[in-house]
Amino acid sequence: MIIIDDILLKDTTLRQLNKKIAQIFVNGKFCKDPKLAKAQDFFLSGLDKPGNTANRLGFSVTNANVEQIPGLNTLGISAVRIDYAPYGQNPPHTHPRATEILVVLEGTLYVGFVTSNQLNNTLIAKVLNKGDVFVFPIGMIHFQFNIGKTNAVAIAALSSQFPGVITIANTVFGANPPINPDFLAKAFQLDVNVVKELEAKF
Amino acid sequence: MIIIDDILLKDTTLRQLNKKIAQIFVNGKFCKDPKLAKAQDFFLSGLDKPGNTANRLGFSVTNANVEQIPGLNTLGISAVRIDYAPYGQNPPHTHPRATEILVVLEGTLYVGFVTSNQLNNTLIAKVLNKGDVFVFPIGMIHFQFNIGKTNAVAIAALSSQFPGVITIANTVFGANPPINPDFLAKAFQLDVNVVKELEAKF
Amino acid sequence: MIIIDDILLKDTTLRQLNKKIAQIFVNGKFCKDPKLAKAQDFFLSGLDKPGNTANRLGFSVTNANVEQIPGLNTLGISAVRIDYAPYGQNPPHTHPRATEILVVLEGTLYVGFVTSNQLNNTLIAKVLNKGDVFVFPIGMIHFQFNIGKTNAVAIAALSSQFPGVITIANTVFGANPPINPDFLAKAFQLDVNVVKELEAKF
Amino acid sequence: MIIIDDILLKDTTLRQLNKKIAQIFVNGKFCKDPKLAKAQDFFLSGLDKPGNTANRLGFSVTNANVEQIPGLNTLGISAVRIDYAPYGQNPPHTHPRATEILVVLEGTLYVGFVTSNQLNNTLIAKVLNKGDVFVFPIGMIHFQFNIGKTNAVAIAALSSQFPGVITIANTVFGANPPINPDFLAKAFQLDVNVVKELEAKF
Amino acid sequence: MIIIDDILLKDTTLRQLNKKIAQIFVNGKFCKDPKLAKAQDFFLSGLDKPGNTANRLGFSVTNANVEQIPGLNTLGISAVRIDYAPYGQNPPHTHPRATEILVVLEGTLYVGFVTSNQLNNTLIAKVLNKGDVFVFPIGMIHFQFNIGKTNAVAIAALSSQFPGVITIANTVFGANPPINPDFLAKAFQLDVNVVKELEAKF
Amino acid sequence: MIIIDDILLKDTTLRQLNKKIAQIFVNGKFCKDPKLAKAQDFFLSGLDKPGNTANRLGFSVTNANVEQIPGLNTLGISAVRIDYAPYGQNPPHTHPRATEILVVLEGTLYVGFVTSNQLNNTLIAKVLNKGDVFVFPIGMIHFQFNIGKTNAVAIAALSSQFPGVITIANTVFGANPPINPDFLAKAFQLDVNVVKELEAKF
Repeated sequence: MIIIDDILLKDTTLRQLNKKIAQIFVNGKFCKDPKLAKAQDFFLSGLDKPGNTANRLGFSVTNANVEQIPGLNTLGISAVRIDYAPYGQNPPHTHPRATEILVVLEGTLYVGFVTSNQLNNTLIAKVLNKGDVFVFPIGMIHFQFNIGKTNAVAIAALSSQFPGVITIANTVFGANPPINPDFLAKAFQLDVNVVKELEAKF
Repeated sequence: MIIIDDILLKDTTLRQLNKKIAQIFVNGKFCKDPKLAKAQDFFLSGLDKPGNTANRLGFSVTNANVEQIPGLNTLGISAVRIDYAPYGQNPPHTHPRATEILVVLEGTLYVGFVTSNQLNNTLIAKVLNKGDVFVFPIGMIHFQFNIGKTNAVAIAALSSQFPGVITIANTVFGANPPINPDFLAKAFQLDVNVVKELEAKF
Repeated sequence: MIIIDDILLKDTTLRQLNKKIAQIFVNGKFCKDPKLAKAQDFFLSGLDKPGNTANRLGFSVTNANVEQIPGLNTLGISAVRIDYAPYGQNPPHTHPRATEILVVLEGTLYVGFVTSNQLNNTLIAKVLNKGDVFVFPIGMIHFQFNIGKTNAVAIAALSSQFPGVITIANTVFGANPPINPDFLAKAFQLDVNVVKELEAKF
Repeated sequence: MIIIDDILLKDTTLRQLNKKIAQIFVNGKFCKDPKLAKAQDFFLSGLDKPGNTANRLGFSVTNANVEQIPGLNTLGISAVRIDYAPYGQNPPHTHPRATEILVVLEGTLYVGFVTSNQLNNTLIAKVLNKGDVFVFPIGMIHFQFNIGKTNAVAIAALSSQFPGVITIANTVFGANPPINPDFLAKAFQLDVNVVKELEAKF
Repeated sequence: MIIIDDILLKDTTLRQLNKKIAQIFVNGKFCKDPKLAKAQDFFLSGLDKPGNTANRLGFSVTNANVEQIPGLNTLGISAVRIDYAPYGQNPPHTHPRATEILVVLEGTLYVGFVTSNQLNNTLIAKVLNKGDVFVFPIGMIHFQFNIGKTNAVAIAALSSQFPGVITIANTVFGANPPINPDFLAKAFQLDVNVVKELEAKF
Repeated sequence: MIIIDDILLKDTTLRQLNKKIAQIFVNGKFCKDPKLAKAQDFFLSGLDKPGNTANRLGFSVTNANVEQIPGLNTLGISAVRIDYAPYGQNPPHTHPRATEILVVLEGTLYVGFVTSNQLNNTLIAKVLNKGDVFVFPIGMIHFQFNIGKTNAVAIAALSSQFPGVITIANTVFGANPPINPDFLAKAFQLDVNVVKELEAKF
């Protein structure tokens, strides 16, 4: 073993390295050498286990994306299990790189998304019961709210191997470092002290 | 109302029609005028209902794609519920336009796909239990087999709004009209009479 | 001229219509018949004119996208001019379908975007002066704030012919119809009465 | 020269390496540093040479894809020469990542593809002579059969730099390790002993 | 039959029409209703016939793209046969939407492309003989020159169903209406009278 | 520090390296580890500075693409500032990977592009003044000509992070090594001595 703490690759070496890497990456569907692929690379267990919803918002997301399943690389899809305590919510958020299709397994959810400014910020929302399916188009701000008295569970799939999540409240009021409170107060028509409180909370 | 049984659009009319259609299709995410979108367009119910598995192979697929949910148009994702009777199977098939990610809700499935000739037709297979997830990469021949004594249920999502299904046996031995039996006998190293029997069955 | 208030196209007619439309849409770069393209279809004037910033937020956006320039259809790019009164702001918003590259023509702007939850909602921000360029990656919540005492002007380009805009405050607190205030109060850690006030304002 | 049999890259080193690699891969059209590109990288000889068809199926494929022509990387196209002995066949197969367009140079071929289940597994087939062209859409199971008494030759192009080939018989009955014969017997309505024989042959 | 010379579609009618059209276009691979697809839609004959090279440049292109083969729609590939008289040439041109892979069937061609300004406008060129293959990357100016004493023939495939051709000389000196000769004289370092002569010729 | 002038990576090492690199490249929007992204990576200054137009053609391009702004990687957009001396010109050229949208900041430009052979090489051109916008579709040969008596300035954006530039005159007559003058003489209907002179100049 050698530990390299600095590296100076000559051009010939880099080309050679490049060639080796290219052999693995050749426009392939897997970063890994496909000849080494095993069932384990396409597998994940545990989506039958409820997530821990003992948090302020009362919900939990269990991921099945490329970070858990390396075989998803380049394949443009992933899944999640979402658990909701009674009155728990998956708060307003966007996925910058994916549309979501959600299937309710248990409980009653009020779900919706809001269209863009061009379409007048229309709320497209519906109450869902067991077996109902709903679609949240890419980039739209959307949410789910458990309006039942029991736990709710959903499986959702997303059209990206790593869709990303942008929770609106955390992103706006919980950025690191915080966004200027005067600026946010004007944007949200809030008192600047309310914004400061929010930034302290998030 | 008029019934048009032939149509001759003058160029100016066609341009006008084109303009109207373009207003609806403008690189949009929906074929429908987005201003008319309703929650119903993004919704489907019934994925909690078991499909009818009383058929030769003992399985059933309930679709949630763009044919059932018009709002999925252009969004690149869809879902299915799959039911399996004991020893039922979803036979070898491909989706020409989608990768599939499958979550087992109930039962025990033996699932797998076979890699391409370039990778030596390797079988990548695994036994799945409740809560397990497996990925079938786009275009690969894959299958699921209920190896348990009870019904099995899975939810799967696919990276296309209309992924298509090509069931291998039906396509090869059940094409309409049938493929030349001598040709198939040679391809599959089967006796030509066996092929003829198969073509009669499918 | 005829006014058609209902239409029943027989299959042969539809195919014929389809063929005519296909002649225009043949995987082409223009919805319009390319043979009819004129310079006017690729042109727009007026981006030298300041927009009207006499509004609550003190900013104005002048669009140069496919709605103004039909020749942009399918070409994946558009532009805007943004004017900012002193202390005016382009409030936190996303473009669901585009990355933005902004060039400051006049004035001093404080600009930034916030990364996704996965990257800890990091604020990536900077003060920009005349001639400075900044990039807002697709789907990220971003903003510009005129921190100078004079008007500011920027030209920005977006990687979509029709990028869409989702202003966060309007979408969350100004949806039509409004989102349930109890739900939002919990999501944003705000008093429910504050949410109700906000929903009345937006 | 050094032989590295284990490697521990510190973060700074990795970033440095990343930077060097990025210089080569910068969203470029070539994995190779484009400044080093030579005519040889875009060239292959030998498609005038008949392939060896002395095999069970009587056909041979000579490839001109990214493995033979590195300059094809990222360019989304490749070619093959196919030779067919009299009564030779290119058996039912799919290309998971490409549509194929085939031009007959010599001989008489019976060619076809079968549509998906949604379109009732319709056989779309035709006899082709010298100079005839046929298209096999992406993902569809297709074949060519030399029905003439002489050798046949075709040039085909595919819409991927590395389209992949999945020969149905080899993949289903010749997987490594073999697929469960009981399962296949049911899928293909074959006697289990026939399946076992097939699996021994392939 | 009716002749429509103006059309005013009410909203309900348009939606109905839209629905019918959508049924055909559903993100599908064919503009035509796929259920009506016939072998003829995927077929073309005549690529064995030499084109007429009795023209100033001594070459001829026979197309096999979506205009001749409707089934190619959305499939991203097409083909051409190119004939070259002795000393004939396919003059410098670009395909704005496609990479080209060319196979020499007969004769000897000198072929090449020139890289972009960023790569110093390097000429990447080679003499090709029967059976040789060469790649012209998307957007690059390229050419073929029959340097043999006999006719030459090539089959080429392009990574677009309708790749387009921009012949440099015709486009620059033969535009309709002509480009300002003073402007071109400066761009090409030519005497303005030479430019005027060229514009008269093309 | 070590200097590596040759490298032999064992398979296990390569897989390990691959894994590390994959962690950075995971279908991400940045080659750089996104956790290390800084505002500086999305920033460039200096587009307020006139470029040096004291050259034969009287124009200058200042780039703001992925080479100057690493954060643009994978984001599909870039910008340029173009300066034109009086009667200066941006000569006929193509961008092989981008559509361009141009905004005139100062002066008067005559701009245009020429359509492909299929559309009869039509010149689509227009005089632009301050605030005017024009679009040059991907792959088309286009130009700008300062027809005013004062300097002109434009900001343009392009639908690629690295659009490339192919200046027609330099590419055709200034290739390295030069293209055969007899060949070019025939293609451009020029005297071979004129071509030789041109090749000496460029």
